[in-house]
Amino acid sequence: MEHNLQILTVDLGERSYPIYIGQQCLHDPAYFQPHIRGKKVLIVTNTTVAPLYLAQCQRALEKFQVSTCILPDGETYKNLQELNQIFIGLLQNHCDRQSTLIALGGGVVGDMTGFAAAVYQRGVDFIQVPTTLLAQVDSSVGGKTGVNHTLGKNMIGAFHQPRCVIADTDTLSTLDERQYKSGLAEVIKYGLIQDEAFFVWLETHMDALLARDSTVVAEAIFRSCHNKAMVVARDEREEGARALLNLGHTFGHAIESATGYSQWLHGEAVATGMMMAALMSHKMGWLSIATVFRIRAILVRAGLPLFPPESMDLEQFYTYMQVDKKVVDGQIRLILLEKIGQAVVCAQYDAQLLKQTLSESLARTWA
Amino acid sequence: MEHNLQILTVDLGERSYPIYIGQQCLHDPAYFQPHIRGKKVLIVTNTTVAPLYLAQCQRALEKFQVSTCILPDGETYKNLQELNQIFIGLLQNHCDRQSTLIALGGGVVGDMTGFAAAVYQRGVDFIQVPTTLLAQVDSSVGGKTGVNHTLGKNMIGAFHQPRCVIADTDTLSTLDERQYKSGLAEVIKYGLIQDEAFFVWLETHMDALLARDSTVVAEAIFRSCHNKAMVVARDEREEGARALLNLGHTFGHAIESATGYSQWLHGEAVATGMMMAALMSHKMGWLSIATVFRIRAILVRAGLPLFPPESMDLEQFYTYMQVDKKVVDGQIRLILLEKIGQAVVCAQYDAQLLKQTLSESLARTWA
Repeated sequence: MEHNLQILTVDLGERSYPIYIGQQCLHDPAYFQPHIRGKKVLIVTNTTVAPLYLAQCQRALEKFQVSTCILPDGETYKNLQELNQIFIGLLQNHCDRQSTLIALGGGVVGDMTGFAAAVYQRGVDFIQVPTTLLAQVDSSVGGKTGVNHTLGKNMIGAFHQPRCVIADTDTLSTLDERQYKSGLAEVIKYGLIQDEAFFVWLETHMDALLARDSTVVAEAIFRSCHNKAMVVARDEREEGARALLNLGHTFGHAIESATGYSQWLHGEAVATGMMMAALMSHKMGWLSIATVFRIRAILVRAGLPLFPPESMDLEQFYTYMQVDKKVVDGQIRLILLEKIGQAVVCAQYDAQLLKQTLSESLARTWA
Repeated sequence: MEHNLQILTVDLGERSYPIYIGQQCLHDPAYFQPHIRGKKVLIVTNTTVAPLYLAQCQRALEKFQVSTCILPDGETYKNLQELNQIFIGLLQNHCDRQSTLIALGGGVVGDMTGFAAAVYQRGVDFIQVPTTLLAQVDSSVGGKTGVNHTLGKNMIGAFHQPRCVIADTDTLSTLDERQYKSGLAEVIKYGLIQDEAFFVWLETHMDALLARDSTVVAEAIFRSCHNKAMVVARDEREEGARALLNLGHTFGHAIESATGYSQWLHGEAVATGMMMAALMSHKMGWLSIATVFRIRAILVRAGLPLFPPESMDLEQFYTYMQVDKKVVDGQIRLILLEKIGQAVVCAQYDAQLLKQTLSESLARTWA
């Protein structure tokens, strides 16, 4: 094992598990073996990641009977049809209840592999090996798994915790610029919702982050995972505080759904959604205009989009927002900001303010 | 509520729920309302059951916003593609996390609806309203949900307990003879695995059961559910004793898989599987030949098949058996009988005895 490795624990009683963050852990059996019970392992990855990291991952698993399932790359393929490829891989290799799935890739691979593990033979083990910034700071931790439906994002899924998360920061070196910046959106999110000090740290270190300074990146991942692990430990199944992690997501999901999950990256949609949530929070009388512009500034520095696509109109945006897991009896519950570092779930608001927020964002009044 | 109603409880802590068994409960709001949290309800049923009982069920749910999803009838349709029809129904009707699904039908409708409820928005409530004998005595109780895969039966699924089970025995009057007898196989199973007194009672009352005497049928359902509820309360997620409920199922699943889930009813395959398990138990030196014939006799009286289809050969049968959730590290664990009323999980056996059992059954040596 490496000495510069950091370990966090997601504290969930008998479902607790470690997050390993560091360099060169992808090919090291020491991180995998303690978390695998049976003899068979299925690595699920995609056509982009496989040529880069599959061989390394296979080396770490030499002790086991390893098979692989390579999915097409992209959020467009996060659906029930492609999920079936994983089931076929499991069944053709006679994987039993003691088998372990390995999710090697970004958020899409992690969500799909985790969901396949949740429902194959009513539940088998899986390990997250995230290779994108977004997956390392967010989607690989916490056990939310699932696929999209043409009628709504992440509508089909399960809570299913991994046995461990192995975040090899070396894999970020091959990440393209747009994917990397998409990950920064979720990093900024943690500062906004519950960690003002981290937000200030991000403002100070944004240049180093954009330059992918390895120490600064590792610190950002650690602090993000630390925030996420705390929230998940308090509310595993999103019956309360965990909903705050969805800051920007209800707005963002509407954008992703409307554009068919093919044009916007998840983090880009979340960034725009956070901007819209900040604007709405200002209209609620919570955020000053100066604070809205401070949030705008960090998103601009991170190279993230601030406005929804011009192809969307207000009616369409509102309709897509209603297909959201936070809707209760037809009412959209919004995650808003009382201040930087303090998000709240808001069910009581003037619908007119929401419509103003949507129309001003769509009209790019703030551009 | 009716006075002749019997109530059992499946004791699972905060997931405990009642089983109501009786006449005329299907159209009575009193059994449904206490178990529904939100405003929206989706009734899932099939083309056979809908014309018979959908209107009654809708009457019981007048207080709610009710929509319906009508699936094609049959085990052939218990797959991921048809499951998507339920998701479309949920999404088109803007069902949220407080919504409740109602499974109105037999085992296929119950398994599919329960699984849809388990994974829609990562889990919503559902209620079982079984309308076949098999579903009333077995599949509606215990929270096993799922769909088949072309490569193996019930390979995709989840443990997800219903909020209640409403077994209206009046619905059995419209059940065709073959379906009814298929249900009797699961009834006989409870006697074989853990309730010798019930087995003797079944031998005594088989004529009345076949004549569908309502008092005798209600008693058989009650005693079956009582047995099942006890096992499930002890071992919800099949980590031990619950596997005994699969007596005859590993053999039976091989038959169902090989015949494409279209020719054999589940109970028919289980009956043949129990006969094969009895034969294997004899070869293990546990059951006398007289006991094997006693088991054979009750299955014959119930009009159930004793032998696998002539189209199958030994190699094929063995291959299908290996795709079973009880397989551990390549070893098929069998559920066998030490005596009537006492089943055991058996992982240590001479593979030759299993092959003899298969070949003798396929050759109908015992016909």
